[in-house]
Amino acid sequence: MSHTSPLKRSFVADLHSLIGQRVKLCGFAETIRDQKHMRFIVLRDPTGKVQLTQAKDAARLTVALDALTPESSVVVTGRVTAAPSVKLGGLEIVIEGAEICGLADARLPIAEDSGLDKWIDHRQVSLRYPSQQLVFAVQTTLEEAMRSFWKQHDFREIHSPKLMGTFSESGAEVFAVKYFGTTAFLAQSPQFYKQMAIAGGMEKVFEVGPAFRAEPSFTSRHETEFTSIDMEIGWIDDHYELMEIEERWLSHAITAVALEHGEAIKQLFGVEAVPPTLPFPKLTFEEAREILERLGHPLGTRADLDSEGERILAEHMAETTGHEFLFITDYPARHRAFYHMRREDRPDLTKGFDLLWRGMEITTGAQREHRYDRLIAQAAERGYKLDALSDYLDFFRFGCPPHGGMGVGLGRILMRLFGTASIREVTLLSRTPKRLRP
Amino acid sequence: MSHTSPLKRSFVADLHSLIGQRVKLCGFAETIRDQKHMRFIVLRDPTGKVQLTQAKDAARLTVALDALTPESSVVVTGRVTAAPSVKLGGLEIVIEGAEICGLADARLPIAEDSGLDKWIDHRQVSLRYPSQQLVFAVQTTLEEAMRSFWKQHDFREIHSPKLMGTFSESGAEVFAVKYFGTTAFLAQSPQFYKQMAIAGGMEKVFEVGPAFRAEPSFTSRHETEFTSIDMEIGWIDDHYELMEIEERWLSHAITAVALEHGEAIKQLFGVEAVPPTLPFPKLTFEEAREILERLGHPLGTRADLDSEGERILAEHMAETTGHEFLFITDYPARHRAFYHMRREDRPDLTKGFDLLWRGMEITTGAQREHRYDRLIAQAAERGYKLDALSDYLDFFRFGCPPHGGMGVGLGRILMRLFGTASIREVTLLSRTPKRLRP
Repeated sequence: MSHTSPLKRSFVADLHSLIGQRVKLCGFAETIRDQKHMRFIVLRDPTGKVQLTQAKDAARLTVALDALTPESSVVVTGRVTAAPSVKLGGLEIVIEGAEICGLADARLPIAEDSGLDKWIDHRQVSLRYPSQQLVFAVQTTLEEAMRSFWKQHDFREIHSPKLMGTFSESGAEVFAVKYFGTTAFLAQSPQFYKQMAIAGGMEKVFEVGPAFRAEPSFTSRHETEFTSIDMEIGWIDDHYELMEIEERWLSHAITAVALEHGEAIKQLFGVEAVPPTLPFPKLTFEEAREILERLGHPLGTRADLDSEGERILAEHMAETTGHEFLFITDYPARHRAFYHMRREDRPDLTKGFDLLWRGMEITTGAQREHRYDRLIAQAAERGYKLDALSDYLDFFRFGCPPHGGMGVGLGRILMRLFGTASIREVTLLSRTPKRLRP
Repeated sequence: MSHTSPLKRSFVADLHSLIGQRVKLCGFAETIRDQKHMRFIVLRDPTGKVQLTQAKDAARLTVALDALTPESSVVVTGRVTAAPSVKLGGLEIVIEGAEICGLADARLPIAEDSGLDKWIDHRQVSLRYPSQQLVFAVQTTLEEAMRSFWKQHDFREIHSPKLMGTFSESGAEVFAVKYFGTTAFLAQSPQFYKQMAIAGGMEKVFEVGPAFRAEPSFTSRHETEFTSIDMEIGWIDDHYELMEIEERWLSHAITAVALEHGEAIKQLFGVEAVPPTLPFPKLTFEEAREILERLGHPLGTRADLDSEGERILAEHMAETTGHEFLFITDYPARHRAFYHMRREDRPDLTKGFDLLWRGMEITTGAQREHRYDRLIAQAAERGYKLDALSDYLDFFRFGCPPHGGMGVGLGRILMRLFGTASIREVTLLSRTPKRLRP
């Protein structure tokens, strides 16, 4: 397409320093007000909004915009003019040329106050709202900062296959794929392959990618497809080393977000982005159980926390420590994956941990059992068919180093950063048992 | 696990400056030589190899390593001792303490000269080979550099869903997934969603993630699952702007690899990593057709290049321009996706392009048709059912800006960087119609 001018594009945020000059602007027509002799348009680009004016007597010029509808995309050239009475920056653009690039339907399918489901149905519109623009700016900054930590610490990036010949975890909640006359399964996590990379001498690896859970669950924090952030680290001494790495990593990433977007988050979501202090508080599962018992929420025979228990604990820790994060460690083995390493002194407990942020689990991690014979024994104890697991078990037959790692939910971190009630407010496109579109 | 010493880990590459000191090393036992009075072990860590020695008369100490097998993972403490006669760095470690962390089976399943299929079968072993360690170090550097370019140019990262309710492209080569009583499809590319992000005002987006093609194809450069690198950019003037961005981006990334790993790539793969000069040569498809005709390889009625044609063109361009890269532009519309924008002056041609590197396609890109009415017409012309495409087509109903983008195959870039014959030599785990494991 040929634009109306060879001028380079300017952005709204820079206009105050361009008074008197001709500029080219690209963006969406947010509002259009046609008066008898004048047309007023508010143009929005990623950096802000500005008023455009067009005198209607210059008949030839106005034609290009006569069909203009709200949210159409336009390219406009004009002169930046001081206009102290205009609320949007005290300036306006006197239009000299204009082109409608994408004409929007006269009737928009949603408004900013439509419900969340409508927002998702019409993502091409709802993504334009300032709060949603911010979500993905923050996501970008957050991941950049995570990666700068990994780079500083010499991690390698891996891309593990999502199509697997066997289940990556229990098999209970796995999607099946027709695969050239056989069946493949969608990876529930990169767990097996990041451990394979460690066995392969890669020492420190990370992956950011999709993970799939065929869970018929409709909570505000579960998706059937989600972005999983995974790390695996070799030559660790124990799971405390993993937690120490995770808390430094998270603090580094949240600090970057707070510095770059703290003000905008506060303005648009009313939430303060506060870099957490180190170290994070830690409780063993048994300590957590005792506290809950004392607070009138006994867990009974449960080997994990229920969401009510998580909430109560978070409240208690916030009161006693002032901290929003809480590691729960040393979970009973019977509730954890078979490959979590057991404590030598208490084989009924694992070297595993969860990380809660304001009472919601955002991480599961553990030192893994890297010794082939013990791993076989732990799988057999669960009644797993060793044949079906043979590819995985083989990873540990040729001298795998001690290691551990964690899986972190990107969407859950964003939920907490923005204080949203649903993961779907911070996800590009939601996938639930009832939603596969758009 | 409790290591044998509270010493901090040292790396082999740093030992020359630690002569006389006690150190702790972690790594794999590459070779073990038991003599009557002495044991010699070559230990390998990510930074190099070193000889360990153990006098056998210190009976108590040798026990820990009596069962040691090649490729077992070990932690060793000992004193760094100058030994000018030792080829590995002129030094050795006199063992004081040792622990076998992961004991390898006495018989390894493969050796470094085993075939590629065996390497893939036993990735936990083949990943340890220096060439494979280098591949993933380079992959990490390459992606880091791509991201630093995106950051400099204010791109946003997106994670689009891989589970779709409709086909992302033609539907011919799509994997079907059982999904709560209905059928989902695995995304062949993030094409639709990166365009949705542009419609949503995100202006510049990128994604790095898996893409799936149910193609029953067994070439050395196709995988059923591969890592796709995608960009989409709003407010472009034409596809030449896209090509100009891509060549700067690639040059930036390849330069980073050449600087950090050029020597190692040359040593292990015999290939020179040369940052390409800008701009890359460009030919329209019609020019390419004429050149091939002249060189005795007429394309006849083909609307695209065959691989032999690609090879001949690459050779010709290398001779005439000295350049390894070649953009082919303005392909006939009938061979390209329906959403590629047409040239105004030649509606039978698209504003699309491919990028070849030494004769292999590594990118397909185009300016997209962003105008709803024209897009509908182009889809209808192909005979597509507009109903099935309605979610996609709706992305363009509310003022989508002009835009374009490209999809780039990570594995193919790595193939060219290392000069390998197969994409499987530079892929963590291959997926083909016949391979779903490990």
